[in-house]
Amino acid sequence: MIETWLIAPISAVISILVGLYFYRDVVKKDSGTKRMQEIAGAIEEGANAFLKREYMALAIFVAIVATLLTIFLPVPIWLTGTPFQNFQLALAYLFGSFCSGLAGYLGLSIATKANTRAANAAKEGLNKAFAIAFRGGAVMGLAVVGAGLLGISVVYAITGDPGIILGYSFGASALALFAKAGGGIYTKTADISADLVGKVELGIPEDDPRNPAVIADNVGDNVGDVAGMGADLFDSYVASIVAVMILGSALDLLSGSAGFYTQIPLTFAGFGIVAAVLGALTVRVGKHGNPGKALNMGTYVTCIIFAVLTLITSYYLQYDLRIWGATVVGLAAGVIIGMTSDYFTSDAKSPVKKTAEASLTGTATNIITGFSYGLHSVFPPLIGIGVASAIAYMLCGPIGGPMGSVEYIKCALFGIGMAAMGMLSIVGLIVSNDAYGPIVDNSRGIAMQGGLSDEVIRVTDEMDSAGNTAKAITKGFAIGAAGLTVIALLAAYQERAGGTIITFDLMNPLVLLGALIGIAMPAVFSAMVMLGVGRNAFRMIEEIRRQFREIPGLREGKEGVKADYAKCVDIATKGALKELMPASVVSIGVTLIVGFVGGIQSLGGYLAGTIFSGLLFALLMANAGGLWDNAKKLIESGEYGGKGSEAHKAAVVGDTVGDPFKDTAGPSLNTMITVMSLVASLFAALIAQYNLLQFLGL
Amino acid sequence: MIETWLIAPISAVISILVGLYFYRDVVKKDSGTKRMQEIAGAIEEGANAFLKREYMALAIFVAIVATLLTIFLPVPIWLTGTPFQNFQLALAYLFGSFCSGLAGYLGLSIATKANTRAANAAKEGLNKAFAIAFRGGAVMGLAVVGAGLLGISVVYAITGDPGIILGYSFGASALALFAKAGGGIYTKTADISADLVGKVELGIPEDDPRNPAVIADNVGDNVGDVAGMGADLFDSYVASIVAVMILGSALDLLSGSAGFYTQIPLTFAGFGIVAAVLGALTVRVGKHGNPGKALNMGTYVTCIIFAVLTLITSYYLQYDLRIWGATVVGLAAGVIIGMTSDYFTSDAKSPVKKTAEASLTGTATNIITGFSYGLHSVFPPLIGIGVASAIAYMLCGPIGGPMGSVEYIKCALFGIGMAAMGMLSIVGLIVSNDAYGPIVDNSRGIAMQGGLSDEVIRVTDEMDSAGNTAKAITKGFAIGAAGLTVIALLAAYQERAGGTIITFDLMNPLVLLGALIGIAMPAVFSAMVMLGVGRNAFRMIEEIRRQFREIPGLREGKEGVKADYAKCVDIATKGALKELMPASVVSIGVTLIVGFVGGIQSLGGYLAGTIFSGLLFALLMANAGGLWDNAKKLIESGEYGGKGSEAHKAAVVGDTVGDPFKDTAGPSLNTMITVMSLVASLFAALIAQYNLLQFLGL
Repeated sequence: MIETWLIAPISAVISILVGLYFYRDVVKKDSGTKRMQEIAGAIEEGANAFLKREYMALAIFVAIVATLLTIFLPVPIWLTGTPFQNFQLALAYLFGSFCSGLAGYLGLSIATKANTRAANAAKEGLNKAFAIAFRGGAVMGLAVVGAGLLGISVVYAITGDPGIILGYSFGASALALFAKAGGGIYTKTADISADLVGKVELGIPEDDPRNPAVIADNVGDNVGDVAGMGADLFDSYVASIVAVMILGSALDLLSGSAGFYTQIPLTFAGFGIVAAVLGALTVRVGKHGNPGKALNMGTYVTCIIFAVLTLITSYYLQYDLRIWGATVVGLAAGVIIGMTSDYFTSDAKSPVKKTAEASLTGTATNIITGFSYGLHSVFPPLIGIGVASAIAYMLCGPIGGPMGSVEYIKCALFGIGMAAMGMLSIVGLIVSNDAYGPIVDNSRGIAMQGGLSDEVIRVTDEMDSAGNTAKAITKGFAIGAAGLTVIALLAAYQERAGGTIITFDLMNPLVLLGALIGIAMPAVFSAMVMLGVGRNAFRMIEEIRRQFREIPGLREGKEGVKADYAKCVDIATKGALKELMPASVVSIGVTLIVGFVGGIQSLGGYLAGTIFSGLLFALLMANAGGLWDNAKKLIESGEYGGKGSEAHKAAVVGDTVGDPFKDTAGPSLNTMITVMSLVASLFAALIAQYNLLQFLGL
Repeated sequence: MIETWLIAPISAVISILVGLYFYRDVVKKDSGTKRMQEIAGAIEEGANAFLKREYMALAIFVAIVATLLTIFLPVPIWLTGTPFQNFQLALAYLFGSFCSGLAGYLGLSIATKANTRAANAAKEGLNKAFAIAFRGGAVMGLAVVGAGLLGISVVYAITGDPGIILGYSFGASALALFAKAGGGIYTKTADISADLVGKVELGIPEDDPRNPAVIADNVGDNVGDVAGMGADLFDSYVASIVAVMILGSALDLLSGSAGFYTQIPLTFAGFGIVAAVLGALTVRVGKHGNPGKALNMGTYVTCIIFAVLTLITSYYLQYDLRIWGATVVGLAAGVIIGMTSDYFTSDAKSPVKKTAEASLTGTATNIITGFSYGLHSVFPPLIGIGVASAIAYMLCGPIGGPMGSVEYIKCALFGIGMAAMGMLSIVGLIVSNDAYGPIVDNSRGIAMQGGLSDEVIRVTDEMDSAGNTAKAITKGFAIGAAGLTVIALLAAYQERAGGTIITFDLMNPLVLLGALIGIAMPAVFSAMVMLGVGRNAFRMIEEIRRQFREIPGLREGKEGVKADYAKCVDIATKGALKELMPASVVSIGVTLIVGFVGGIQSLGGYLAGTIFSGLLFALLMANAGGLWDNAKKLIESGEYGGKGSEAHKAAVVGDTVGDPFKDTAGPSLNTMITVMSLVASLFAALIAQYNLLQFLGL
């Protein structure tokens, strides 16, 4: 057998090279006037300062966890005959953290360079500016998939053991949780504070340089949306691959097909990267084109290339075509889920319009209406995830054997995993589109603060609104993918816990108790990070008010008077670091407590519970938040009273409520449930042996 | 064996007699000045008009369902050898609807009489007024448990078949769903509209007679909180008893102990009523006492009486004491859950204080903070429900046989049912306390509108705030009880579906798909009723504005100028009826679709999903809503800027957002999940035989 899985590291390297090419391409562009460079410099500095502090704080956490892993996993070091395995696992964990951090750093570094260059190029027209912004985003996208898959390949090449790759994945996830929660708290602290004092209290426009929080706000877009979101999808991507590898290796063990099933996900992931690279190269827009359409077209092209490439490969390598079928089902479900979230958040559709209309009767009705549509919006994606997994299951089961046999079930679960992978295969392009958003958001800010012409601001506005359109789809996609991934991870956990088929029967009170605790966790986690934002914003609002009060001439915009931007950046940074730890530690801690107290069954129920409620809240929060945002923008475009009307004020409050929903709590939930599932899988064997209930003989 | 279960109908009759005694006691009191009688008359008229229209609309629905039941259940009439059973089931269904409707009507009828009498008695002091208000509420409480248990007893005496009682329970639940959703939409339509135009736009106080919506608002308190809530708890109460009877009859079948286990829940329920009657008789307050404490003390006294009575009975009748243990565990869990919801909604505790404080930085932070604490608040009750069911399971399992045996499992599930019953045993008093709330709320309104002295208004205020304190506990109690009840119903469904032990394994894709659809349903249902409130409020706000615009002298409060109250009552009534149908029909419809397409396993997963997400949202919405309400009241008491400050305005918006959460969507969810579970149990046998997947051979 040819080692076809080598397509994975090869395409990962290609991806990184194309990323570097884009990087060079962007950096050599003109970065604009001195004033623009100054602003961009301040943003870059703030972002780097945050990242540096965050990584330093995380280093301690990572070191502690690595030590614990060395001591306890896979088998407590005083009981194991192969202590080397413990070191391997800890090293894989460190490597995963490092790769995830590196991808975040790279993305952030290019994003803070692409913003001013795109703003400057906007002088020459949309097409030039768009190319810079998109390629800036693509650096991040390609770095994420390249680093992710290369890392997996390296660990697999060295150890050949998916169990060790689990450590790599855990490293990536734990870092992502911090990056996401920390970045999310940072960005919304700055955003809410800047809006509340600036827009609401003083009536000055967004991105106005008089506002002391304006730089912190721009920094926030980068650390939250670029670094955080990159780490998030890095994590789902790696987790989905490792979950399928674990399910595949179980199949290999059963059927004696050394490495055959284990390697399929690697091969498919390799082609996914190829498709994303080709897709990214096709994305472009004319001078008067529609950037939103261009981004979505890139997504569809990538999907088609991926489906065709993997079909040919499957045929050539004689993979069962039903495996390919499961992959494509996942991919299609991802696209459909993305489209439905577009429906709920697009300003051309009824939910946003009705919410904007409700603003006419006041803030409360705006919020109730937006929240209600957010509740509605969970229905299609949840059905999509459920149907995709049921189809994948039933499609692949018969490959193994007759219904109900162990072979059937293992093949069927492998199919669910492949569906998750299918959804995530094109993640390179998804991240590119998503990172494009904050870049153009910053471009707009720099153009405003740099005093560029109205025409340039109009171009940056157009790019910005395209970013929002693309974001709706990519966000739905990310949540859908996380949903299927965690279902695959649940299967992987089951595999790791028993080897044989364990059931998680809802009528078993231990499973039920676990599930009830599990469904509460995403709510508690969301509450913790949102209250963190609240506390942090409170501190920052006081500071902004103080500056307006104490710095003479600031409010009037007197020549030469400058706000103390650095102070606001500092408050956001410190606060975010302080607030992110408890929520993250609680997530991991409760998972371990449930496992070591209630045993394997409780933990299985618990994971299912977190998946259910995590998906529910992630969808609700992402969609309601996006919807409020666009309802506000719709009013600002002149409908329902337009800017400055009472309806507009109501919609601004709705948007502010939605901010921590869609940018702090909502997107962190994906990562939270992935981390919990990985922790459970890592500790599964240990928990099966040692847990309190068993100890008590219950 | 003595027919000990006869304690059930006997105590039910006692309960109804005591209720009648209270009724007479209240009605013979002086109903106050002519103006007060006028207002009370308008409220009574509005409430009756609503109920009449609602019941007429429901009659059609009930008739259709009864026909369908006759045709299809328990076995399609063209296939059955015992068509009489079909008629029995349909009759039981009609009887259940009738009893539930009657209890609602009785409660409403006394509540609209007690309000003005309590307001009038407030002239003579707190103790007199309190006695009237509490006894008014107790009429409702005793009617609910009396009618519920008497109905069950009658059906059981005639048929001896818990399967037919299921029909009775379904009748009660379906009616409760409509009453709850319809009343909830009505009350919040009126409340929001009255507040938004009155308090926010025009700055006139609550319950001001100039406001055209003021009567509709008072009517709303009655149809939402009294009639709706009574129907809700009637439904949980009956459902919990029937669930345990079904589980008990399975045990009886297994162990050949004719009727022994089936009758235990009836006996216990009988003593529960005795405890509630005795408890209600002890509730009183001194001239300067604390009415809130008096209400809670009544609850504790009832709990203790119940525990002692059932312990003695168990000993005397030689019931296994572990069954009693499970009951008491459920009861204790109910009290603890009630206390935690008190923590999250009491203005003496941190969550309300922090939310009030957050209002200082604006509306958005008020809402984010309140919502976050609402999210936090789901944790303790979910754990409470989980732990109570696990303990009850493990306590009662060993009665049956060794762990893992069919006998063990059936006894264990019976134990969970008894825990649910334990929680609901004291429901007579819970409903009394809860119905007290809207009565005193109305008293306050009548005192305001009737121009009574400040001292009288202060007394009614004090009674009102005690109502809110008691409400927090009773609401937590109601949700906890519903949680355990639906878990018992899930077991009953399992029993009805297979007879043998069916598992609902989360790794079975059909169960998973069902669960994913199930967790979406409470969200969709909430969205539908809340959007209904929004649409309805929109119409009403326009009408209130129109009246203020077009009726000369209304705004200034000119002597002799009256608002057109009836028009507002009419809008609320029509709107509520129009909006309640779709949500209710969807709930029942989707349940049947999932069952007849996906089969027994999918439906099991679906029910579990609805329970998980239903509890989550019910707790979140009830607690966040209560918290916002009390944060507003805390500010109105003079803290954080006091009445009229910016913080107060922010808190008023938060309270308005919370209104449909806590009074429309949240409390309807209990009923929704109960109805779904009952539908599933009723159709279980039919679904097991006929479903699409089986037909397709999948």
